[in-house]
Amino acid sequence: MQMNDMILVSVDDHVCEPPDMWEGRLSAQWKDRAPRLVHKQDGSDVWVFEGQQIPNVGLNAVAGRRPEEYGMEPTALSQLRPGCFDVGARIGDMNANGVLGSLCFPTVPGFVGELFGRHAKAGNPELAIAMLRAYNDWHIDGWCGRHPGRFIPLAIPPMWDTAEMAREVHRVAKKGCHAITFADTPGGLGYPSLHSDHWDPFWKACADEGTVVCIHIGSGTGMNLQDPTAPVEIMIASTPITLFNCATELVFSSIFSKFPGLKIALSEGGIGWIPYFLERIDYVHEHHHRWTLHGFPNGKKPSDVFREHVITCFIDDAAGVRNRDLVGIDTITWECDYPHSDSTWPLSPEKLWASLVGVPDDDIHKMTWRNAAKQFQYDPFKHIPKEQCTVGALRAQAKGVDLTPRIGGGGKQPSDYARGYCTIGDIMKQMATAFSTPFDSEERR
Amino acid sequence: MQMNDMILVSVDDHVCEPPDMWEGRLSAQWKDRAPRLVHKQDGSDVWVFEGQQIPNVGLNAVAGRRPEEYGMEPTALSQLRPGCFDVGARIGDMNANGVLGSLCFPTVPGFVGELFGRHAKAGNPELAIAMLRAYNDWHIDGWCGRHPGRFIPLAIPPMWDTAEMAREVHRVAKKGCHAITFADTPGGLGYPSLHSDHWDPFWKACADEGTVVCIHIGSGTGMNLQDPTAPVEIMIASTPITLFNCATELVFSSIFSKFPGLKIALSEGGIGWIPYFLERIDYVHEHHHRWTLHGFPNGKKPSDVFREHVITCFIDDAAGVRNRDLVGIDTITWECDYPHSDSTWPLSPEKLWASLVGVPDDDIHKMTWRNAAKQFQYDPFKHIPKEQCTVGALRAQAKGVDLTPRIGGGGKQPSDYARGYCTIGDIMKQMATAFSTPFDSEERR
Repeated sequence: MQMNDMILVSVDDHVCEPPDMWEGRLSAQWKDRAPRLVHKQDGSDVWVFEGQQIPNVGLNAVAGRRPEEYGMEPTALSQLRPGCFDVGARIGDMNANGVLGSLCFPTVPGFVGELFGRHAKAGNPELAIAMLRAYNDWHIDGWCGRHPGRFIPLAIPPMWDTAEMAREVHRVAKKGCHAITFADTPGGLGYPSLHSDHWDPFWKACADEGTVVCIHIGSGTGMNLQDPTAPVEIMIASTPITLFNCATELVFSSIFSKFPGLKIALSEGGIGWIPYFLERIDYVHEHHHRWTLHGFPNGKKPSDVFREHVITCFIDDAAGVRNRDLVGIDTITWECDYPHSDSTWPLSPEKLWASLVGVPDDDIHKMTWRNAAKQFQYDPFKHIPKEQCTVGALRAQAKGVDLTPRIGGGGKQPSDYARGYCTIGDIMKQMATAFSTPFDSEERR
Repeated sequence: MQMNDMILVSVDDHVCEPPDMWEGRLSAQWKDRAPRLVHKQDGSDVWVFEGQQIPNVGLNAVAGRRPEEYGMEPTALSQLRPGCFDVGARIGDMNANGVLGSLCFPTVPGFVGELFGRHAKAGNPELAIAMLRAYNDWHIDGWCGRHPGRFIPLAIPPMWDTAEMAREVHRVAKKGCHAITFADTPGGLGYPSLHSDHWDPFWKACADEGTVVCIHIGSGTGMNLQDPTAPVEIMIASTPITLFNCATELVFSSIFSKFPGLKIALSEGGIGWIPYFLERIDYVHEHHHRWTLHGFPNGKKPSDVFREHVITCFIDDAAGVRNRDLVGIDTITWECDYPHSDSTWPLSPEKLWASLVGVPDDDIHKMTWRNAAKQFQYDPFKHIPKEQCTVGALRAQAKGVDLTPRIGGGGKQPSDYARGYCTIGDIMKQMATAFSTPFDSEERR
């Protein structure tokens, strides 16, 4: 096969929420309290919710900029490529990149809906669940539903109430949504760990519905960074490997033996480290279980448990592809990460193809779409003839999409470069301002 | 070649300090204040130093036990295999395992000598430096020096004073020692990070002497563990990968551009994750440097910097060996980890050989001894004819070494197994008791 014959399904992209997303999604009781996008006097856009403002309208949504401007944090929707928030434009951008299907993580609510979770914990769970359901309805119907066959819907969970979590899993499954987010380290958000019965209603609902639990990097774990004055590359390079710890916690927890149908995806975790990881967990189990007394059902090895239950993914990962037999060819999926700065858009087919030299067609199909389709109950060919789903066919439909890099995209300067480079502290400061602060209506433009 | 033709040099083993180690090593001013081993009424041995007792006489030194007893923390020298602390017996154990050369990390002083560092910081740097120098003298002369050609000496640094560090590097280099320890995250011990000029005198001395800086897992970094009630396997499996962060910090720091001759070894870090790591750091650099403005001299890639300056090692790591071209064949060394519970002793040749199927002889030699010999300025053949250095030749000399697993080795039970398995909390509690507490002479037996 050739590059243009690939079918690409990305299991990790991001949506920036459009201003009209709440319209018609809430009952009379709640509709006046929906988040609203406000244009401020300083030219920025913020979401205002319950008297607080949330400025991260397009957190790191820099697709279409030149690499020189990847660090400029967008502060207004006008600074974003429309494909970030407009689903029609998104389809154009997917076509231009030869991508058939996409699973999109949220931006403003946070990966696991903590914008709403904070209000639930502060004593307003009715508000929180109303907003969360409306969010999921918009995502499923207003984003994914507008272009059948082009998206894998992904819900956010009401983390504060496991019975509600289970109900939401069942509710969205009825609407065709078989993926939901979860935190890599729930303890980092103040919730119980994986090693208790606390989450059992949620795991059970997911196992019963065949709903994949998607754990994205940055959804809980902190890194052990030495020094905020160090180059920011250290933080960027070390983020995906935080899922090594998460994967170890998952495998040695009891959740997979309690819920044999449960599937968990490690989103943006990469795959090149998985062969080492699997060898390491097997070594540790074999070497130590006689004194730790920890075992697995039916004499399974930890690597068996991982390959049975965990779905991996990669952006561009030649070492992982080379060792796909050690990773487990049936667990590997691919991702684009549009519109974040680590994305390969709009040259994903070219970058990916370079890693696939010598890989048999069957393995390519598994990694680029077949595993994703199977695990996420995603059947694009019900809606679109298969021959129209390839990189070549989709790109042929994208003639009108302008891929000229935008110069002067605007946004917040990441650093004063006093040390000669952007530091970890610069970016941590930038991210801290993305949390909500009180909103003064005088700021409105 | 055959298994018995291999030459094995281990760059990560451990020595438990023998009771007589301080004899004749200190001046009249200090000799009465040397640590002394005390037998207590409860049958345990502790080192007593400056009124404090340190019970970890053989931290996890469990070689020779059955795996069922790996978790029993030795509390007395009599519970240890003599090879842990008696250098003659150690040579026997090395011979029985076909191991020619060994680099041994300290036990009681801690990986970077913090037993002494604490006293320096508490206002007694003269005491600290006297003890540290005596320790290094014993290690070089009293341990390694007794069997020429069989050990690579390793010093511990006076971390509290960088001028003293530099002096000690030069002092021990004159005695033939070209390796010294350092912490993976100095900030975790209260010292400045790698991203300042603070350590420059130390790096310069090491670069000038060709002294390798050895950073062992557990020498500084904490892990992000979710829950102390979780299975301890999670902690054991995740420890080596903490060096991923350390490696990233090293590569993106300025130390290698400032000191082009500097070499750093990642001890017990494993190698299977290195191909992913190198690909990731190159991706991040290529993808982001245009806005971070961080660069490398002469257009080098981060992976070039790593391969030029960093030495890796593995115990048993088939994925790493398969991808040795991606790791960098000239950077890889091997380790045995005697007498810790992760060791492959006394079947290291068998375990290692199984990973080497199809590997060309030249690559095997590089990984098992040649790289180590070159990097650590270690020339065993000056002392022992090469044909007597192989696995087969050494094992032939070990006929009298008893390898029968010891049953009922004694020590502290690791857990009450109330949850059905040993937990992270159990082992953290066990390790916490290894720190020094006041000593009451009434406890003496």
